[in-house]
Amino acid sequence: MIYFEDLDVGKQTFFGSCDVTREEVLEFARKYDPQPFHLSDEAAARTYFGRLSASGWHTCAMTMGVIARAVVKDEQAGLGSPGIDELRWLKPVYPGDTLHVNGRIVDKTPSRSKPDLGSFRTQTTVTNQDGVAVLRFTSIVLIRRRPAA
Amino acid sequence: MIYFEDLDVGKQTFFGSCDVTREEVLEFARKYDPQPFHLSDEAAARTYFGRLSASGWHTCAMTMGVIARAVVKDEQAGLGSPGIDELRWLKPVYPGDTLHVNGRIVDKTPSRSKPDLGSFRTQTTVTNQDGVAVLRFTSIVLIRRRPAA
Repeated sequence: MIYFEDLDVGKQTFFGSCDVTREEVLEFARKYDPQPFHLSDEAAARTYFGRLSASGWHTCAMTMGVIARAVVKDEQAGLGSPGIDELRWLKPVYPGDTLHVNGRIVDKTPSRSKPDLGSFRTQTTVTNQDGVAVLRFTSIVLIRRRPAA
Repeated sequence: MIYFEDLDVGKQTFFGSCDVTREEVLEFARKYDPQPFHLSDEAAARTYFGRLSASGWHTCAMTMGVIARAVVKDEQAGLGSPGIDELRWLKPVYPGDTLHVNGRIVDKTPSRSKPDLGSFRTQTTVTNQDGVAVLRFTSIVLIRRRPAA
């Protein structure tokens, strides 16, 4: 189990990768972001995106999928997140892309009111198969402190 | 068509509502956020959430679904978003909840480099059936300027 005490500020972690499929891009967009440029190449061609691209929220969801699988495997004692700062969709994400998810621990703070709890901030950067950063955000994450022996 | 020129700073808009179902909470979590507390009541009972709650990213996706359907219907000339600031998951979202999505235009800025483009910031607040705010964030949105007559 990874606790607050085990986190090293500045440490970088590669969480894993995922492939972006056209089918999933369309399925997510139909359900959660049915703007024309996320539904067809034709509509996207008239925008900055140029061709069908993933909803930014879909990119966030795919990123969380990669992170969640890694932290569950490592048994990190995380308790969810109160929020996100400075989220930037830097470049479009297209069907056929492969996304690589990296994190860096920015800082960590013991809770002032709850002795069994701490929080840390981590900056997540997602790059595509060309090494281009497509998404970056800073999360606040709650985590258990190591129980006294 | 709603263009940059039609946006009123300070204006509040009710975008719509959606119901949170247990089936969809589990489906989203299995795919995009398989942390134990998003997969079962038993695991959630040992956390702050108390019982099965939606992934925060799922709440964002449902919120975007409500907003996207409203702006597509209104033919807002939006061109996507470069990012989000100060996103806060304020309270858990549970199966059976109904979410209401409201927005308020914070400011708007014409593009300095592109005469046909502007951007605005909008603060989105999502409340549940009890009037409790569960999610709040500020988006930056790109939008077309009204073409010269």
